[in-house]
Amino acid sequence: MKNIALTFCMILGFTLVQAQENDSIQIRKIFDEALTQGQAYENLRYLCKNVGDRLSGSAGAKKAVRWSVAKMESYGFDEVWLEPTMVPKWDRGKKEKCEILPEGTNLEALALGFSVGTDGPLEAEVVQFSTMQALRDAPEESLKGKICFLDQAMNAKLIDTFSAYGGCSGARVRGPSIAAEKGAVGFVMRSLGLRADDFPHTGVMYYAKGGDSIPAFALSTNAAHELTKQIEKRGVVSIRMEASCKNYPDVESNNVVCQMNGTEFPDQIITVGGHLDSWDVGEGAHDDGAGIMHSLEVLRIFKSLGIKPRYSIRCVFFMNEENGTRGAKAHAKASAERGDKHVAAMESDRGGFSPRGFTVDGQSPVIEYLSQWKPLLEPYNLHFIRKGYGGTDIRPLKEFGNPPLIGFVPDSQRYFDVHHTANDVFENVNRRELELGAASMASLIYLIDKYGVPEELKN
Amino acid sequence: MKNIALTFCMILGFTLVQAQENDSIQIRKIFDEALTQGQAYENLRYLCKNVGDRLSGSAGAKKAVRWSVAKMESYGFDEVWLEPTMVPKWDRGKKEKCEILPEGTNLEALALGFSVGTDGPLEAEVVQFSTMQALRDAPEESLKGKICFLDQAMNAKLIDTFSAYGGCSGARVRGPSIAAEKGAVGFVMRSLGLRADDFPHTGVMYYAKGGDSIPAFALSTNAAHELTKQIEKRGVVSIRMEASCKNYPDVESNNVVCQMNGTEFPDQIITVGGHLDSWDVGEGAHDDGAGIMHSLEVLRIFKSLGIKPRYSIRCVFFMNEENGTRGAKAHAKASAERGDKHVAAMESDRGGFSPRGFTVDGQSPVIEYLSQWKPLLEPYNLHFIRKGYGGTDIRPLKEFGNPPLIGFVPDSQRYFDVHHTANDVFENVNRRELELGAASMASLIYLIDKYGVPEELKN
Repeated sequence: MKNIALTFCMILGFTLVQAQENDSIQIRKIFDEALTQGQAYENLRYLCKNVGDRLSGSAGAKKAVRWSVAKMESYGFDEVWLEPTMVPKWDRGKKEKCEILPEGTNLEALALGFSVGTDGPLEAEVVQFSTMQALRDAPEESLKGKICFLDQAMNAKLIDTFSAYGGCSGARVRGPSIAAEKGAVGFVMRSLGLRADDFPHTGVMYYAKGGDSIPAFALSTNAAHELTKQIEKRGVVSIRMEASCKNYPDVESNNVVCQMNGTEFPDQIITVGGHLDSWDVGEGAHDDGAGIMHSLEVLRIFKSLGIKPRYSIRCVFFMNEENGTRGAKAHAKASAERGDKHVAAMESDRGGFSPRGFTVDGQSPVIEYLSQWKPLLEPYNLHFIRKGYGGTDIRPLKEFGNPPLIGFVPDSQRYFDVHHTANDVFENVNRRELELGAASMASLIYLIDKYGVPEELKN
Repeated sequence: MKNIALTFCMILGFTLVQAQENDSIQIRKIFDEALTQGQAYENLRYLCKNVGDRLSGSAGAKKAVRWSVAKMESYGFDEVWLEPTMVPKWDRGKKEKCEILPEGTNLEALALGFSVGTDGPLEAEVVQFSTMQALRDAPEESLKGKICFLDQAMNAKLIDTFSAYGGCSGARVRGPSIAAEKGAVGFVMRSLGLRADDFPHTGVMYYAKGGDSIPAFALSTNAAHELTKQIEKRGVVSIRMEASCKNYPDVESNNVVCQMNGTEFPDQIITVGGHLDSWDVGEGAHDDGAGIMHSLEVLRIFKSLGIKPRYSIRCVFFMNEENGTRGAKAHAKASAERGDKHVAAMESDRGGFSPRGFTVDGQSPVIEYLSQWKPLLEPYNLHFIRKGYGGTDIRPLKEFGNPPLIGFVPDSQRYFDVHHTANDVFENVNRRELELGAASMASLIYLIDKYGVPEELKN
């Protein structure tokens, strides 16, 4: 009996070592394919240079959908389809102007998404706040007839720049409404970026229901600095804002989806995705051109290496992540209607920088389970699989049996130099960094597909 | 007795936890200082924009030495001194020309360091080799009157780009001599870079003693591709090379050194350093402006935080790393004359990119000892302290009792886009990435200074 047990253990041990060796070889092949035959970079070049910016509801977004369908079809995956969704439509209109009065010193500015226009020049004195809390604490009516200047800097001490962004993005989303409540007629804010430069960062903003809609701009960090300097010097400073942006009725749009059907469990889905829409400045290269090219490349690598997945591997180009997440909701609804079961989902929406690891929105046992593969991934500088955020677009899939929602984490240091700016262009993406991201994602997806995710760990 | 032992263990345990907490707080302060009060970036801007390129023996190198002394003195460290060394002097002369005949298609090229000039246009047929081994295997006299074209690409599959570089740099250093041995009259090679672009990469080359000195160029990767295309199309292709570079007698130069004297062991040294010289194109921003600013910032951070080191912390700006390592040798000699004891040495010469970890040239026990601090460093994305290369400039310190030679390792993906090219400029350095590098080095130096390196682990 002892001998049988020993033999059994030896066979099991041998099998495990063998499996790990095979996995290690397969992962090496995945990286080789991405680094020497990768198509993510040229696909991204095309999207950036021939489609360009693609805010939901824009002509660019329509063109991006058409390109995506054609590209996915060209790869010959099992299925390609569109998922319809209504999306908001907002248009920036003419380039906005912002200047210090009376001499007209220019302040580089971008209207925030959904901002109303100014209906001609809007001139008023500015009142500066250095934090969102200070604005909240301002007395009622204290901003009557004034322009609120929210000069809140991102916290440079945080190593993860997304944490610094998270601590400030509420100021952009809700700041204008709070200023309006206190009587402000306009709102300008310091851009959410860590660098001193001339590129203002736009981003979504929502007016409170029943509140006043006041024009809202982001100033470049240099412009915010200039305005602060003038306030320090003169005490009272007035500025002129001018923008012709406008909101329109919702329009029809689409998520674009492709799939390799599973050989064993075709109705059970492993999703990878990013978002197809971008802001209307720059080219949406890192945000989130990189993420969709990563995701598409996962399937292309599988196909090219002859990997036949056991589960269906689905790649989703989500529409409207930036201002509404309607695509994410539409995808969850469509998935429910199809009766899909979800094994796991992975999102890439943190740029095309050098890979660091993965964060997982899921129960501890499932994270521990995924972490068993760390030794296979460490040779590729993937040093963690830990609890954290999954992604905005895959979040609604949580209700489908709580699959692990995995966020791909590249290095974050440069992301907020380009995020939502005219600077988010193809030239700022490095080919190898992008390719390594795709290979990192493909490797973890490969392991999840091969070994599955035990149901009992999910809840 | 049992109670006493228990109490002792509890006190020891408490003390250890306490020490680790204190260390964690101190490291947090080091990062805060670097990220909010850091001077590495502005120092680098000054060096790049006001001194610029600084090849050993050039006017730029002289200016760089003067700037370094003044800057170190401005910080008020305990000592600042110069270490004299003779260095080679080579001058590129006029911008070199390289073109395909007869139509004159331009090939972007840079002469390699120490290359002789062409003495007017040099025209000959090219013979292409795709590996250094193929060139070695070519029959004697087979290149008679020809220009050797060594078209060896770096291996894109290697995750660490320095490994890919290491596999090819011998082709640059010795390729021209081997070609000359077989009768070649000129040498051109594909640049050592991973990207397809128009920036040729220069670098050092040595002629074999007693062999012929033939003009040697690096072509940009795009130019190498163009030349290959023409060879494929036409079979026989001739090119014209023209350069006026020249070697001169050695000249006097210096390492620049500053030191905070140790409170307990002033004659025992912990060295940090990088190299002050650069190639003569670009601004030596990543190579190795970043490294010297990292090193200087270690001492500045210590001083600013009031850290009084137990050992002497020495910062060395080495001269002549690029073409001769005379500064490294001179430093070791000077150190021997002073009778210094070396606790550890750390070098930064892999660019100012996002930190990854440390590699250590040393015995396994000492590496294991240093690795005990990994938990303190991981929150800062420093994921490894492992066996590996220390650095070219600190290498001669090995003979001083085998101190651990530590290489700071930032992310390597973008390094060979700029290395030894006109593209190695300040604008390609990210402020936060640079600052994080300085803080990473300062943190490990802080721990080494606090706990020392036990002698018995070194050998």
